[in-house]
Amino acid sequence: MFELLKIDAHTQARLGRLTTKHGVIDTPVFMPVGTQGSVKALDPRELVEMGTQIILGNTYHLYIRPGLEIIAQAGGLHKFITWPGPILTDSGGFQVFSLAKIRKIKAHGVEFRSHLDGTLLFLGPKEAMEIQRTLGSDIAMVFDDCPPHTATAKDVRAAVERTLRWAKECREQPRANGQMVFGIVQGGSHAALREECAKALVQMKFDGYAIGGVSVGEPEPEMMKAVEYTTPFLPEDQPRYAMGLGTPAQMVELVARGVDMFDCVLPTRVARNGTAFTRKGTVSIKAGFNKADFRPIEEGCECYACRNFTRAYLRHLLNVEEILGLRMVSVHNSHMYLKVMEDIRTHIAAGTFAEFRKEFIASYVPTQRVLSMRGQTMVRGADE
Amino acid sequence: MFELLKIDAHTQARLGRLTTKHGVIDTPVFMPVGTQGSVKALDPRELVEMGTQIILGNTYHLYIRPGLEIIAQAGGLHKFITWPGPILTDSGGFQVFSLAKIRKIKAHGVEFRSHLDGTLLFLGPKEAMEIQRTLGSDIAMVFDDCPPHTATAKDVRAAVERTLRWAKECREQPRANGQMVFGIVQGGSHAALREECAKALVQMKFDGYAIGGVSVGEPEPEMMKAVEYTTPFLPEDQPRYAMGLGTPAQMVELVARGVDMFDCVLPTRVARNGTAFTRKGTVSIKAGFNKADFRPIEEGCECYACRNFTRAYLRHLLNVEEILGLRMVSVHNSHMYLKVMEDIRTHIAAGTFAEFRKEFIASYVPTQRVLSMRGQTMVRGADE
Repeated sequence: MFELLKIDAHTQARLGRLTTKHGVIDTPVFMPVGTQGSVKALDPRELVEMGTQIILGNTYHLYIRPGLEIIAQAGGLHKFITWPGPILTDSGGFQVFSLAKIRKIKAHGVEFRSHLDGTLLFLGPKEAMEIQRTLGSDIAMVFDDCPPHTATAKDVRAAVERTLRWAKECREQPRANGQMVFGIVQGGSHAALREECAKALVQMKFDGYAIGGVSVGEPEPEMMKAVEYTTPFLPEDQPRYAMGLGTPAQMVELVARGVDMFDCVLPTRVARNGTAFTRKGTVSIKAGFNKADFRPIEEGCECYACRNFTRAYLRHLLNVEEILGLRMVSVHNSHMYLKVMEDIRTHIAAGTFAEFRKEFIASYVPTQRVLSMRGQTMVRGADE
Repeated sequence: MFELLKIDAHTQARLGRLTTKHGVIDTPVFMPVGTQGSVKALDPRELVEMGTQIILGNTYHLYIRPGLEIIAQAGGLHKFITWPGPILTDSGGFQVFSLAKIRKIKAHGVEFRSHLDGTLLFLGPKEAMEIQRTLGSDIAMVFDDCPPHTATAKDVRAAVERTLRWAKECREQPRANGQMVFGIVQGGSHAALREECAKALVQMKFDGYAIGGVSVGEPEPEMMKAVEYTTPFLPEDQPRYAMGLGTPAQMVELVARGVDMFDCVLPTRVARNGTAFTRKGTVSIKAGFNKADFRPIEEGCECYACRNFTRAYLRHLLNVEEILGLRMVSVHNSHMYLKVMEDIRTHIAAGTFAEFRKEFIASYVPTQRVLSMRGQTMVRGADE
């Protein structure tokens, strides 16, 4: 189902093609996040127009609302949300360990209370796979134990052991017709644990492998290391997915380290605060300096927002809390992420990825948040 | 600039064509409201696709934010908001008398404090026309005194006198190139005052006439009477605009009374609460009975929302507060208002408007709000 088309001569960047039941995906790929069955503020037409190849859904959120029965009656997640292309569903592991309250980790899953109304629920490998089978996603993720960055080495080891046991259980569950299942490598920033986890998962023979336990509050160098500790032990001919990452510059760096797939809530989340991504870094569209700036968010950008609206107008809309403002910054940011991936694919194909990477990183000014990630631990972000 | 193409044989309904600098408008017409320079939650492409011929802007709101300087620098309102078609701007009279605080009515306008930050501001005929000239709207409205429904006969008389004096001052102001100016008839539910106001305005020779002082909390029969008291004194060959009205059924009834133009915030406002307009009345999409209803909002509707999404999905989106939910109900409601007007035009042209009206009213179930408007005074709604 995955064809490795090319490996870059100067980096570990890879060009690939992943065939799913709902369409072919060119990798490296960015997957917009539709946590609750909608990529925030965007409609399917806008997603298609900006070049979206695959979107994410979330087991935990969709299980709580609207619930499986409704989605099953609709004929699966694709039909329920009217998305014709591929969908990857996260297993809910990350959310159970980050969002849910009063949990008890048991042998075959986690007992937790809904973050919404306190309902007592249980999710484990069997349940997560059953839900994803009902959702009918093209790619299902195993149910893993995702510890926070602050976890002790002992806790991380326990999480790896649990993750492996649960991965095996997931592997044995029935799947939806044509559904792929990816394993998730845990192990924090411990090289030995990452290696052990990756090797054991590969023996179980999944359709692809994710690097989990990143985007959990770790400094940027540790994030990079977590990936570097893992990829050497993953099969070359299968897709690699770095979960929940990152900024555009981080994605370029991770592609250079051999990652094929990305998802991140940043493009739509920061848009709702009026922040736009550009090739030169982020810019606050709400800021006073855009008051009478009649240029688009980013010169040369071909997204609907940049083709039609000025910074001055978008600033006004954000300022008076008109929904069109956050809509258009969401359009721009998501388009920007997808376009960076398209450029990456073009450059890998042309053999110029190394130069592209160098220039991209040189002109991309990191935010204070990223700078602090490079120097110190940051607080784990709330889930979208 | 206005051609009266046909008067219905059985009612006073009129078919017309209004030529503006930015395009031709077929009447009767519904004008979506873009108070702050954006029709709430919709983008210009969506507006064009649903058949929008002209949109509204608001002097008071745009004057406060982003301010005239920005819009002037952008080259006028059309360019600032990227709307290629005609724009009608309200004069700010209604807002000054309903939204603003601590006001002093003076000879040549009103001193008031911004509802936002308390800044002391002044708007009168001269200022309102100057602002609308800068905005460059296709149709400008005179600055009027719009009293609430609870005003005494004495107050309404004073408002009519002031409205006429200010209308004359507006008439004398310079206009933008090709800009039309409409007079506004006040007079509450007093037949003599409506007649007096209409006749005096007609003598001043405006490009069209609006019926103001409606949608100010009056019972529905008084709203109809305010229109009936006014239209006999308006020239047949000029457009008539009922300000701020109404429900679909009210618009059908007002067309039957000779009104050509409408604007109303209801379609987008109620959408944000999850309420949809249909030919059978309003329906709460958020309601539990839509949980597993996989039909569109309205069978046979050709709007983007009904072509793509089910009630069950939209209910889920509204329930989990995803922006796509209120976006899609806003699309449906605005499309519904525009389509009712299109049907009205078709039926007037075909000579079947009387039957259409009868059937429309028979199948449209009024809301409690409208029922109460028929029986008793209602509280004046907050401005969008």
